[in-house]
Amino acid sequence: MDKVNVAQKLSLFTEHWSPKIVGELNGQHVKLVKFKGEFVWHKHEQEDELFFVVKGWFNMEFRDRTETIQENEFIIVPRGVEHRPVAPEEVSVLLFEPATTLNTGDQQGELTKHHLERL
Amino acid sequence: MDKVNVAQKLSLFTEHWSPKIVGELNGQHVKLVKFKGEFVWHKHEQEDELFFVVKGWFNMEFRDRTETIQENEFIIVPRGVEHRPVAPEEVSVLLFEPATTLNTGDQQGELTKHHLERL
Repeated sequence: MDKVNVAQKLSLFTEHWSPKIVGELNGQHVKLVKFKGEFVWHKHEQEDELFFVVKGWFNMEFRDRTETIQENEFIIVPRGVEHRPVAPEEVSVLLFEPATTLNTGDQQGELTKHHLERL
Repeated sequence: MDKVNVAQKLSLFTEHWSPKIVGELNGQHVKLVKFKGEFVWHKHEQEDELFFVVKGWFNMEFRDRTETIQENEFIIVPRGVEHRPVAPEEVSVLLFEPATTLNTGDQQGELTKHHLERL
C-alpha cells in the first residue's frame, strides 16, 4: 500500500519491450515499459489494454490507421484488435491490463516475456 | 478506440469530488476527478482503487498514517481499507477501479455520485 513514484521506477531499468509490474489491483496489473523501435503485430484475444504515455510519444499502428500518442495521452486497444507500437525515439509507457496479458499476445516469439519482474 | 488527452478532458469540468468516466476496459473504469478539501472516511468492500496524481498533490489519510501523493505518483488502496482523501489545494487525479465502484464506498450520503458523466 506504499505509493509509487513513476519516475523513480523508470530509473531502475533501461531495456526496451520488457514490461515491469509496479502495481496490482482487481486482477489487473499496472506496468511500466520503455519502447524503442518497432514491435510485432499482435492481438490479445481476451484482454483490453491501456497505454498511457508518461514521457515521449509513439505511434500505435492499426491495420487501417495510425494514432500518435503523446505525453499525458492514453489509448485503449480492445481485445481482438491487431496493433503494433512503433517508437522512433524512446518512450516510457504505463500499461493497465489484466494480469493474464502476454506482451506479444497471439504472436509468441523472441520478444515474448513470460515472467515479468516486479519493481 | 480514440486516444484520450488527459488535460483536454480535465478542461471540460470544474466540480470537485465528481468523477467523470474517460475510459473503460476489462470491466474497469478510467475516471478523472478533481479533489479540493476533505472527503468522507469510507471503504470499498469489493474494490481496490488506484489514485494517480496528474496535477497537484493530496494527502491520502488512513486510520494509522497519511501518505502524500505528488504529481506522477500513484497509490493503490486495497478493498476493505478505510481511507479519506484530503486536498488542501485543488488536485487532478486519474482513477482506475472496477465499474461497480461507488465514490463514497460504504458511506452513502450527500457526496455519493450514483450516475457518472462520460466525457
